Amino acid sequence: MKISQKALECNLSPMRKFHPYAVEAENKGKTIYHLNIGQPDIETPPNYYYAIHNFDNPVLAYAASPGMPVLIQAIQHYYDKLGIHFEEDEILITTGGSEALQMLMLSILDPGDEVIIPEPFYPNYNTFVKSAGGVIHPIPTTPEGGYRYAFRKKLEDAYNEHTRAIMFTNPGNPTGVVLTPKELRTIADFAKEHDLYVIGDEVYREFIYGAEDLATIGQFDDIHDNAVIIDSVSKRFSACGARIGAIITRNKELRQNLLKFCQARLSVATLDQIASAALYKVGPEYFDAVRKEYKLRRDTCYKKLLEIPGVVVKEPQGAFYMMAALPVDNADTFQKWLLTDFDDNGDTVMFAPGEGFYATPGKGLNEIRIAYVLKQDKLERAMDLLALGIKKYNETH
Amino acid sequence: MKISQKALECNLSPMRKFHPYAVEAENKGKTIYHLNIGQPDIETPPNYYYAIHNFDNPVLAYAASPGMPVLIQAIQHYYDKLGIHFEEDEILITTGGSEALQMLMLSILDPGDEVIIPEPFYPNYNTFVKSAGGVIHPIPTTPEGGYRYAFRKKLEDAYNEHTRAIMFTNPGNPTGVVLTPKELRTIADFAKEHDLYVIGDEVYREFIYGAEDLATIGQFDDIHDNAVIIDSVSKRFSACGARIGAIITRNKELRQNLLKFCQARLSVATLDQIASAALYKVGPEYFDAVRKEYKLRRDTCYKKLLEIPGVVVKEPQGAFYMMAALPVDNADTFQKWLLTDFDDNGDTVMFAPGEGFYATPGKGLNEIRIAYVLKQDKLERAMDLLALGIKKYNETH
Repeated sequence: MKISQKALECNLSPMRKFHPYAVEAENKGKTIYHLNIGQPDIETPPNYYYAIHNFDNPVLAYAASPGMPVLIQAIQHYYDKLGIHFEEDEILITTGGSEALQMLMLSILDPGDEVIIPEPFYPNYNTFVKSAGGVIHPIPTTPEGGYRYAFRKKLEDAYNEHTRAIMFTNPGNPTGVVLTPKELRTIADFAKEHDLYVIGDEVYREFIYGAEDLATIGQFDDIHDNAVIIDSVSKRFSACGARIGAIITRNKELRQNLLKFCQARLSVATLDQIASAALYKVGPEYFDAVRKEYKLRRDTCYKKLLEIPGVVVKEPQGAFYMMAALPVDNADTFQKWLLTDFDDNGDTVMFAPGEGFYATPGKGLNEIRIAYVLKQDKLERAMDLLALGIKKYNETH
Repeated sequence: MKISQKALECNLSPMRKFHPYAVEAENKGKTIYHLNIGQPDIETPPNYYYAIHNFDNPVLAYAASPGMPVLIQAIQHYYDKLGIHFEEDEILITTGGSEALQMLMLSILDPGDEVIIPEPFYPNYNTFVKSAGGVIHPIPTTPEGGYRYAFRKKLEDAYNEHTRAIMFTNPGNPTGVVLTPKELRTIADFAKEHDLYVIGDEVYREFIYGAEDLATIGQFDDIHDNAVIIDSVSKRFSACGARIGAIITRNKELRQNLLKFCQARLSVATLDQIASAALYKVGPEYFDAVRKEYKLRRDTCYKKLLEIPGVVVKEPQGAFYMMAALPVDNADTFQKWLLTDFDDNGDTVMFAPGEGFYATPGKGLNEIRIAYVLKQDKLERAMDLLALGIKKYNETH
């Protein structure tokens, strides 16, 4: 029985690679501090549940394929408040940002077409690009350079005749890098000159800890046909289980083709759309509180990392991740050892080893991604466990 | 800006083609009887809503990528009652049967690979097969032959070195054809001999109006690696808006590759999974009542069609669709005329013209699909409108 070449080229999630060892450690009574998965612990605004409780149609019917007007209008209004206007038909609702990415890649890539993506990047990009027959062309970055990538020279070096798009998470997963307005403009110019789609995966938009305003690739008037925003309620409202996302673009031809995929899967879940529309009713005080909480956590992680001898890390400005190079020979081996051979009073820690975030073989071997999705006291303990683990690991290896 | 070749080869839904004319007709005050869309009017079992109301986790988190145990176990139990046992890891939860089909095609098809599908078929198969780079190789059928397709000779004629799978909806959409146990075995043997996946899209399984037992391609012990069931709660429980489906297969290698796509999109909506698990608590009296209602409707449609001179139709045994050849030159032109130039006391009718259900150019031009999703009185009126429309159309054309 044949498996497709494109499926064989995809991988299982590197974030879940150590799950069996974690189960074993827990069965032995260890407590694991999880910094490995981007599942926030913040409460979902109760608007979500209220809206679902108020639904009273006895038939749970299909919604319209492009999305329900109530949700499209809620998103439209959200962007209006950011100062960027989209027409209703420029917003297509999807089953999470994931379906948005899958549909988009199928709509723009033929076998051999390339997408420029700065590495390290969100590992699931691999599956979306490869399943469409495409190839990821990485932009190299370094821990020492704080993983910044939006330089003219780096972009030009990654470009060739097969290039169709440039895609990035901004604010960045796994790096926490936030593009400056100048960097965003550099990318926009590059896309415009080469007729490339410029795909901003902006699902962490609100999570910025510097002086920056919310920025989006949708803000430029001269790249309307190039720009595509991937959006989601998952992180914005800590509603990962809603599976509600969106593709937003002013490119009409692209939308017409995306609509074929929207129609083929009929619709996005009805109740989740209605409830997600209600999420957009939260006020700015919600985002202020969440941002303040994550900024404290970011500060804690960063400070604790700086105290560990040999760690290379620059202060990240956004999302709820940071990437760092550790003074260990191999982060995979180290993670496994933390689960099988290490504990401090019965406690150990998990992070996501860096290799899976790179397309270039051999890169990221001593790097890790930390998701700071735990409350302050747990986060401090987790970072102390990391420091202690590094020390003990290097004494015994 | 480039659109992919595979997206260009896909089409917008033929079921929605006449939507603009319908809107115009309604704006002029016409009442339209909709037999064009497979959205049932049956009430969703309230278990769905109760389960959601009882959810009290303040964080709406991601579910496990392969699906939530509560739903997997509910489906496992449902099949146990059919006399077919699947292990929990042989059931992968998907966002509707649609995502199941999309993931499956991406997992098994490379460019040029063929899938044998009897035509007429569910039009969205086109998008799922083509977006994976595949080609639909149709098995021809006829209205006079009641659209039956499961004959050894027909299967062999469609086979070649590029064939990877045979796929069918059973009970059939758009034809209402239900495979006999002997026909199902013929297909199983064919798949086994040629090492093909045999994909049974069985989302209408309960909707059968003859003496048959519920049948499934999963019932044969000698094709465990070949058989794949596509399943869904949409029609079974009139819960189309839940977007909950499943891929069920004993083929371990296939599952391992499907899991890559499950992980890439992280999870299926959490509340919809919990609520769908509760749907499986309905007793056999639920299905008996629904089956009885649809059987009455099927009888009404079929009787009314037989009364129209020149219509070719055989009694369908399942789903809630039937396909018929009409005594008109072109069903597309006829449908448009019904919306723009016809009414009887302000009423008109919509169905789905047949051409969009065929892969072979020029086939199905005078055929239509009727979805009998209206209550008896409305259904009778709709069928009378169809008869009257045919008469008047032929008088004026």
